[in-house]
Amino acid sequence: MFLGLVVGTVVSTRKEPELEGLKFLLLRPCDLDGKATTGSPVVAADAVGAGLGEVVLYASGSSARQTTVTKDRPVDATIMAIVDTVEVDGAHRYVKE
Amino acid sequence: MFLGLVVGTVVSTRKEPELEGLKFLLLRPCDLDGKATTGSPVVAADAVGAGLGEVVLYASGSSARQTTVTKDRPVDATIMAIVDTVEVDGAHRYVKE
Amino acid sequence: MFLGLVVGTVVSTRKEPELEGLKFLLLRPCDLDGKATTGSPVVAADAVGAGLGEVVLYASGSSARQTTVTKDRPVDATIMAIVDTVEVDGAHRYVKE
Amino acid sequence: MFLGLVVGTVVSTRKEPELEGLKFLLLRPCDLDGKATTGSPVVAADAVGAGLGEVVLYASGSSARQTTVTKDRPVDATIMAIVDTVEVDGAHRYVKE
Amino acid sequence: MFLGLVVGTVVSTRKEPELEGLKFLLLRPCDLDGKATTGSPVVAADAVGAGLGEVVLYASGSSARQTTVTKDRPVDATIMAIVDTVEVDGAHRYVKE
Repeated sequence: MFLGLVVGTVVSTRKEPELEGLKFLLLRPCDLDGKATTGSPVVAADAVGAGLGEVVLYASGSSARQTTVTKDRPVDATIMAIVDTVEVDGAHRYVKE
Repeated sequence: MFLGLVVGTVVSTRKEPELEGLKFLLLRPCDLDGKATTGSPVVAADAVGAGLGEVVLYASGSSARQTTVTKDRPVDATIMAIVDTVEVDGAHRYVKE
Repeated sequence: MFLGLVVGTVVSTRKEPELEGLKFLLLRPCDLDGKATTGSPVVAADAVGAGLGEVVLYASGSSARQTTVTKDRPVDATIMAIVDTVEVDGAHRYVKE
Repeated sequence: MFLGLVVGTVVSTRKEPELEGLKFLLLRPCDLDGKATTGSPVVAADAVGAGLGEVVLYASGSSARQTTVTKDRPVDATIMAIVDTVEVDGAHRYVKE
Repeated sequence: MFLGLVVGTVVSTRKEPELEGLKFLLLRPCDLDGKATTGSPVVAADAVGAGLGEVVLYASGSSARQTTVTKDRPVDATIMAIVDTVEVDGAHRYVKE
């Protein structure tokens, strides 16, 4: 998985029917401090009710379809967890407020 | 999924038979404003009837085969949705005309 | 899928038995004009009888195994189509000779 | 697989239920000497009891789900082995202390 | 598949049991002349008995598990063939000694 910062949402009315009911959040890859980096934005289905400004873990590829809400759906990126803390070499680098 | 801007089409007469009947669109990765970036172009099967100049969401890998039109076909990128709006930090960055 | 330019062949006598009989072509990623870029070369199984100098579409990952000639074989890149034309914003950028 | 250096942990209380009980370690890609490089950090499930400062092998994609602890779980990166030695051109470049 | 140059080995005693008996070789991505490039090293399971200094073809992702020795094992990169020749535009660029 990778760390991502939730920065927004993507809305679509015309889409593959199997995507109906999923919420798509816009993520920026982020570093160990939870700050967005310049990497390409990712659009991920939300399996955990994440919100703007939260740091999350998302899975890509076929693993993105291994949750109850995304099973057999055509998604290749899913938010799997909301991060509480990132600890590096024994010190907290990121703590959720 | 990633955001892509539809910039063209790719036509092929000599191809794997399982690709017959699919439409292949040429995408440029795009930023949160819906502007094309310098990333490598992607050729994606179209599952939603997207058109030139539209911003779309496309899925890659095995997830690209989880739609009715691409099931069991040898495609690794499929357009899943036409994007209406991209909202970042509470403001619209892209709105479909 | 991605666009690739066929630039050569790779020959191997000592290989996984399941690869026997497949032809492996050497591809360079290419731009919308069909010109090779500096990206890493890819070695792809050929499912359509492509030849030197042709622009092709190739699929990667598990999708590369969804053709008759590559089914259940350990290949992760397969040429799926020979490109006739690439049209961008209404104009031909590449036309097969 | 790729080589990674374990640099920390990621903790999450709100997550996909299928992730319960897994430990998530933070890896930095590393070179043949076991030194971290500037590549993006990866968050991997731990299948072998790895610890801070160890060099590990991790697998990505669907292969990350082929272990007893990760089977059918939505993870796309799993630590598969703790590296004892990396030998390059006949000389040890990394030896676990 | 990609071309890789075998530059060494990785040894691990503490690992996922399903990896027992596999040999892990260290590869550097290489160019059409069989020279190592600066790309990230890859650790691949060996399905063909490759040796130091040989140029090989390796497959990634789920395709890496489609060989007899790697079936259902948690590996995401496998050496599938030892390369004899790489021919580009009609001339040999690499010939195995």
